[in-house]
Amino acid sequence: MTAPAQPSFLLTPGPLTTSARTRAAMQRDWGSREDDFIALTASLCEKLLEVVRNPGTHVCVPLQGSGTFAVEAAIGTLVPRDGKLLVLVNGAYGKRIVKICQMLGRAYVELVCAEDTPVDPQAVAAALAADPAITHVAAIHCETTTGLWNPLEAVAEVVQQAGRKLIVDAMSSFGALPLHLDEIACEAVIAASGKCLEGVPGMGFVLIDERDLLACAGNSHSLALDLADQYVNLRKTGQWRFTPPTHVLAALHEALVQFEEEGGQPARYARYAENCRTLIAAMGAHGLKRVLPDALQAPIIITFLAPEDPAYDFKTLYDKAKDKGYVLYPGKLTQVETFRVGCIGDLRADDLARASEVLLDTLREMGVKMLVESEA
Amino acid sequence: MTAPAQPSFLLTPGPLTTSARTRAAMQRDWGSREDDFIALTASLCEKLLEVVRNPGTHVCVPLQGSGTFAVEAAIGTLVPRDGKLLVLVNGAYGKRIVKICQMLGRAYVELVCAEDTPVDPQAVAAALAADPAITHVAAIHCETTTGLWNPLEAVAEVVQQAGRKLIVDAMSSFGALPLHLDEIACEAVIAASGKCLEGVPGMGFVLIDERDLLACAGNSHSLALDLADQYVNLRKTGQWRFTPPTHVLAALHEALVQFEEEGGQPARYARYAENCRTLIAAMGAHGLKRVLPDALQAPIIITFLAPEDPAYDFKTLYDKAKDKGYVLYPGKLTQVETFRVGCIGDLRADDLARASEVLLDTLREMGVKMLVESEA
Ligand SMILES: Cc1ncc(COP(=O)(O)O)c(C=O)c1O
Ligand SMILES: Cc1ncc(COP(=O)(O)O)c(C=O)c1O
Repeated sequence: MTAPAQPSFLLTPGPLTTSARTRAAMQRDWGSREDDFIALTASLCEKLLEVVRNPGTHVCVPLQGSGTFAVEAAIGTLVPRDGKLLVLVNGAYGKRIVKICQMLGRAYVELVCAEDTPVDPQAVAAALAADPAITHVAAIHCETTTGLWNPLEAVAEVVQQAGRKLIVDAMSSFGALPLHLDEIACEAVIAASGKCLEGVPGMGFVLIDERDLLACAGNSHSLALDLADQYVNLRKTGQWRFTPPTHVLAALHEALVQFEEEGGQPARYARYAENCRTLIAAMGAHGLKRVLPDALQAPIIITFLAPEDPAYDFKTLYDKAKDKGYVLYPGKLTQVETFRVGCIGDLRADDLARASEVLLDTLREMGVKMLVESEA
Repeated sequence: MTAPAQPSFLLTPGPLTTSARTRAAMQRDWGSREDDFIALTASLCEKLLEVVRNPGTHVCVPLQGSGTFAVEAAIGTLVPRDGKLLVLVNGAYGKRIVKICQMLGRAYVELVCAEDTPVDPQAVAAALAADPAITHVAAIHCETTTGLWNPLEAVAEVVQQAGRKLIVDAMSSFGALPLHLDEIACEAVIAASGKCLEGVPGMGFVLIDERDLLACAGNSHSLALDLADQYVNLRKTGQWRFTPPTHVLAALHEALVQFEEEGGQPARYARYAENCRTLIAAMGAHGLKRVLPDALQAPIIITFLAPEDPAYDFKTLYDKAKDKGYVLYPGKLTQVETFRVGCIGDLRADDLARASEVLLDTLREMGVKMLVESEA
């Protein structure tokens, strides 16, 4: 088979549309033990720590694999074998952390709320007060299942007041939503290359309080996923323990250079927010309903309710939109039928305006009646 | 920092020199749930199974991360929690499997021989006869520590005769040394993208007997590294469980197309063998000694003894050779000082001839006396 032509736009939460410049950074090979590559890794780690305004407490531990690998590595390394994790669940990624605890045999307790409801900091405080065995709390910054923006600052505050440690899965928010370590108490922040930093997928990273990390030797259930060992070796030699995804790293580095040129997190947030507003306005004007109210909506990925019309069918919408160059994302809600549209990646408001037109046209072609037809 | 220009040649055992065509395959983005990408994954798996002449018994389970992730995943998934692994050790990668068993809490026993000595099949037979608790045997096909080619066929035979299962780390040999599943009994073969198939690093894969794999649900110590779960999901949906390294996969697929065009494993072997002969002849003609006799030398990576001359210093040789466009690999032997030169990657005999000249010239510049000076 030969590679099909690149679709114009991935409206997905990662892998996403990258810039030509980022992809061009994968056009050279690197020896993983070369000084140049050691310098590239160091520069990457420094840039990632700048994104969260590291007050000097945290270090960056890069890890091969997808985001889930980094999440599992963080739980396995940071939560001691006799520790206990409170997992804040309002979607699939919170549930995944529960699954990880089960597989690793770490004690945990879940605090579950509905998929369209933010985590409640007071409930977290109560859960921590009720169970002194809890040592750590895991929170999802943006729950990608819906696109819900959880109230991280307030959660961090109650966790700190209760004297516990917070581990944040910031996979789909890192670099776009504000998360500043000089303002919020957070033992670890987990993210990956192929999300809002607009690199290609293939590596994750965890920003960890160095003092905590150095106390974690021996916790890990896994050699490959041992972040303490990965860090000790990186600090000593500048090298990854095992072969790094050299091209993915070079692409992420180049993506971070562009991130800085754009103006860092505030600018990235502003661009995505504009993308999101453009999409929501266009779709909303034709009566397409969303799962989340504006106040809970992170400008990352939007979950639309499937039109209640027998002519609607996700697979048809997906295929037709894709033929026109736009790749959608399926819904992931457990109760209602939805589809999702990502606002992240190398996309601008006019791209989202055109994407909305394509989606609306396609729905019309399918014979789905719009609740509201504009005059046009 | 800006990316330095690509060095001409990586004389390393992976990451290695890739072809421009392979790197060009990373110039498009893929949605990981797109039909195109599902087809690409299926095509990749099929090609990988063809490399080992799958008699229809084995399936391919791709995995995010470096080769070690795939090794750990294979051990954790295939060796039951009450199983026991015999690890055949004659170098660093055998030792790494021992470390994995220790971290995972799997029972194991080591059969160790010297780094310049191949695994002895009779000793394996004796170890298996002596300990009926052993369920599995782990062997390294090419021990990259030295470049030693272990006698896999003979080992497989005694393992089969003893009614145990064989897991092969074929990381540095896959696609270059023959390994045919229609001829040797082998439960699992582990390798990765960035070695002799000449892809870029970032994913591994394990070719596993499907019946055995389906019996392994629940063994794994890890969610991310659970190959049984990865396979069940892949078979059901055609998709990876967690975000795949899309660009790395596309590059590996394109590298496999070129592998087939070249003539598959026999042709790859022949090219590397020619590379190896060229290098050894040129270096040997000037008295540079190797650790391994010809009979044990796989045409993958050559370990040279450091010249016994006070003017010799690896770092200087490395830096000077790199300035001339050739990246060497440090030695990894525990007893003697060595350096290594890889023969794999998108390199041909004339590249190795020039590489040898550069290395010899550099040694001369450093004032290292050659044991033999040619007339030229
Ligand atoms: C919040 C969150 N956590 C974890 C993950 C898992 O990442 P990956 O698919 O790279 O394993 C995702 C993926 O989208 C995510 O959005
Ligand atoms: C035989 C062998 N096994 C395992 C590995 C580990 O692979 P990685 O460095 O990709 O984790 C290597 C790496 O060179 C190897 O040569």
